[in-house]
Amino acid sequence: MAERKRVVILGAGFAGLRAAQTLAKQAMDITIVDRRNHHTFQPLLYQVALAVLNPSDIAQPIRAVFRHNSNVEVLMDEAIGFDTDRRRVDLRSGAQLTYDYLIVATGSTHSYFGQDEWSKLAPGLKTIEDAVEIRRRVLLAFELAEREMLEKGTHPELNFVIIGGGPTGVELAGAISDIAKLYMRRDFRHIDPSQAKVLILEGSPSILAAYPEDLRESAVRQLNDLGVQVLTGQHVTDVQPGYVILGTGPDARRIDTVVTLWAAGVQASPLGKLLKVEIDRRGCVLVDQFLNPKNHPEIFICGDLAHVEQDGRQVPGTAQPAMQMGVHAAKLILADINGEKRTPFHYFDKGDMATIGRKAAIAKVIWPFKAHMSGFPAWIVWLVIHISFLINFRSRFSVFRQWAYTYLFFKDGARLIVGSQNLPGWNEQQVEEKLDLNAPELTAKR
Amino acid sequence: MAERKRVVILGAGFAGLRAAQTLAKQAMDITIVDRRNHHTFQPLLYQVALAVLNPSDIAQPIRAVFRHNSNVEVLMDEAIGFDTDRRRVDLRSGAQLTYDYLIVATGSTHSYFGQDEWSKLAPGLKTIEDAVEIRRRVLLAFELAEREMLEKGTHPELNFVIIGGGPTGVELAGAISDIAKLYMRRDFRHIDPSQAKVLILEGSPSILAAYPEDLRESAVRQLNDLGVQVLTGQHVTDVQPGYVILGTGPDARRIDTVVTLWAAGVQASPLGKLLKVEIDRRGCVLVDQFLNPKNHPEIFICGDLAHVEQDGRQVPGTAQPAMQMGVHAAKLILADINGEKRTPFHYFDKGDMATIGRKAAIAKVIWPFKAHMSGFPAWIVWLVIHISFLINFRSRFSVFRQWAYTYLFFKDGARLIVGSQNLPGWNEQQVEEKLDLNAPELTAKR
Repeated sequence: MAERKRVVILGAGFAGLRAAQTLAKQAMDITIVDRRNHHTFQPLLYQVALAVLNPSDIAQPIRAVFRHNSNVEVLMDEAIGFDTDRRRVDLRSGAQLTYDYLIVATGSTHSYFGQDEWSKLAPGLKTIEDAVEIRRRVLLAFELAEREMLEKGTHPELNFVIIGGGPTGVELAGAISDIAKLYMRRDFRHIDPSQAKVLILEGSPSILAAYPEDLRESAVRQLNDLGVQVLTGQHVTDVQPGYVILGTGPDARRIDTVVTLWAAGVQASPLGKLLKVEIDRRGCVLVDQFLNPKNHPEIFICGDLAHVEQDGRQVPGTAQPAMQMGVHAAKLILADINGEKRTPFHYFDKGDMATIGRKAAIAKVIWPFKAHMSGFPAWIVWLVIHISFLINFRSRFSVFRQWAYTYLFFKDGARLIVGSQNLPGWNEQQVEEKLDLNAPELTAKR
Repeated sequence: MAERKRVVILGAGFAGLRAAQTLAKQAMDITIVDRRNHHTFQPLLYQVALAVLNPSDIAQPIRAVFRHNSNVEVLMDEAIGFDTDRRRVDLRSGAQLTYDYLIVATGSTHSYFGQDEWSKLAPGLKTIEDAVEIRRRVLLAFELAEREMLEKGTHPELNFVIIGGGPTGVELAGAISDIAKLYMRRDFRHIDPSQAKVLILEGSPSILAAYPEDLRESAVRQLNDLGVQVLTGQHVTDVQPGYVILGTGPDARRIDTVVTLWAAGVQASPLGKLLKVEIDRRGCVLVDQFLNPKNHPEIFICGDLAHVEQDGRQVPGTAQPAMQMGVHAAKLILADINGEKRTPFHYFDKGDMATIGRKAAIAKVIWPFKAHMSGFPAWIVWLVIHISFLINFRSRFSVFRQWAYTYLFFKDGARLIVGSQNLPGWNEQQVEEKLDLNAPELTAKR
């Protein structure tokens, strides 16, 4: 028997975690590298952003997951370079890792189409930090409006603008509408939170482009029923504190906002580039049926970072394919070690679903039966699937109780504003205050 | 019957909240002003800092508490001035509030003895933000050590230094020791977290000075059993990234630290000064037996901000007296309105307790029986009292379940690192990274 193989896994998202779990009980040494100390259950991140769940309900320390697997080590670090000839990963800390097999599953991040300064003004939703920041902004908008109402007898319109009509944009829009119309309905004395306007700006002709037309239309109807406006074919040309600009030239329109959120574009992690392998325009690595980039059977690309074609269309960058790729990469490594033949990856598509606030959703079900569902039934399916995931994931029931409690019965949940008490473009004095409050990154005032 | 009285309550800590709850059902208009949107259950804040509880387990949106009291309004704002002749409060937002009665309960904050730059290097524990920041630093220290061990085969000693040996300092010390020795014992592969050293630096001759000698000695013994060192009579003369200096001149000693925490001094909220009433050297307002500052029977000072003498000693700045003062001030207002005689405030002292990590504590019990308890029995008393508080406070049992789960069975709790991945003085490259990571306060990266 040869000496133990060394497997390095970059990224502890769905793909990396499942790969590590599949290999954890095998006779090999596994190193997981992630910039964060926790795995995040991204499908419910928007519920942290909208104060229904706690960060720790949907995030788990990676070390804790593998505590009992002594052959798995976890490093909170970041890959910054590769020497694929020497099979070596260089980490930001200066450490270097050698590998027999490398699994790269570092996913994707927001793309501001080159306008990175927009990220300060329109945060996206990929991490716990993002979720906490979005929560802070959304809740704070109501507080500042109440304050201003008392002072001036009027307040800026509570316009929440979401740029991008994909699943995340739709989830955020529905959830903000819920917060304003249901959870907060008796919280304020001077403003009426239910007057909040939620607007989705989508550049393409339709939101949720990945879904069949009947479900897309149903989604728009359900959003409208919640009071969410959907503007399609609208190109955001500028994002400024307190407003966004649509279109250019004479037709340019200004839309005032209290909170602007970004759900428009994603780009792949830069590791594809660093690997010097073939990538597509979004930075995803082109891989073969064994999830390998060209000429690198020892390197597996999984999850959002992988560009996998199946039946003529690209496998979507969602949790399901990511987990399946992670497991499959692990199995191929085991096949090699056991001298078995590698089997090609095939994405088993059970379908997709997008939730639209409380009691509303669309679902394209493929397995165990084919169906297009929408409205309450789709939402129930979504709920059951995600609750079971979550219980499984956190292996405790209390999350579900917390969730049911908050989400179904409009209870308080985690509606805390933590951090700065200012919003971009709200008013000068507050912007100044913001600066001195938060300039030193490490002050306890954070 | 005269027109409805207007009561303004500044601060929604224990004193302000209890005052508001006592008045909420009466025929008057109440305005609560707090810089934060939530009330914090401070006695358990250290458990958020040490990742046992979630912020939302011990903090509650103030609006939610009074949702059903239409005569109570809540403003997320800050008092910056008073016109006591016109009975007016000026708020930072520019709004002004007039009152018939004013309750000032804005508490206290850290005092760095004029060395405010130390606050960045040695955060204290007063707010949820503080707790989250302390958690970030403590957990990150272990991650960085593991990382450095891998890179260099060695790592800085894991010295956690707590400046100040009051109840908070002791709680933090015990809890850090628990995390290192119990919760994390199987989490790392290269470092041994149980080698972490926790050190309390106390300037006075003894820690927990407010307690009788037998309990103080017991506390030191219990801390030593946990491996916590206690240095008394030690004056910190400088706090720098990565180390602190004790003493001056030739006897000056340098102690290297990975995390330095501040539990040394508190100073009263500045509102006492702004009220232009008599204050003591710590900024606490000298009040009479009716909790009024001189010549202001319409102004009540409650909680940490009040300097109340009883039986020759000052009533301590803890939760119990604060709640009793809040209730009493409310009752005096009602007495006035009903034309009854004001009764003097008397602090009903049930005793004090300080917990020392898991299964250890000291308790000076005065009511319902007199006793000095320490060790496990004291801890059980502490546990029962705080759990009942907490259940009552959040009116839900899940917190207790979460807590029991985490705290008693060493489960994961909320051990997430959120925010910057750097520690002051860890190393240059990381400090730079820190700056560009976090410079713009509003970036989504936070």
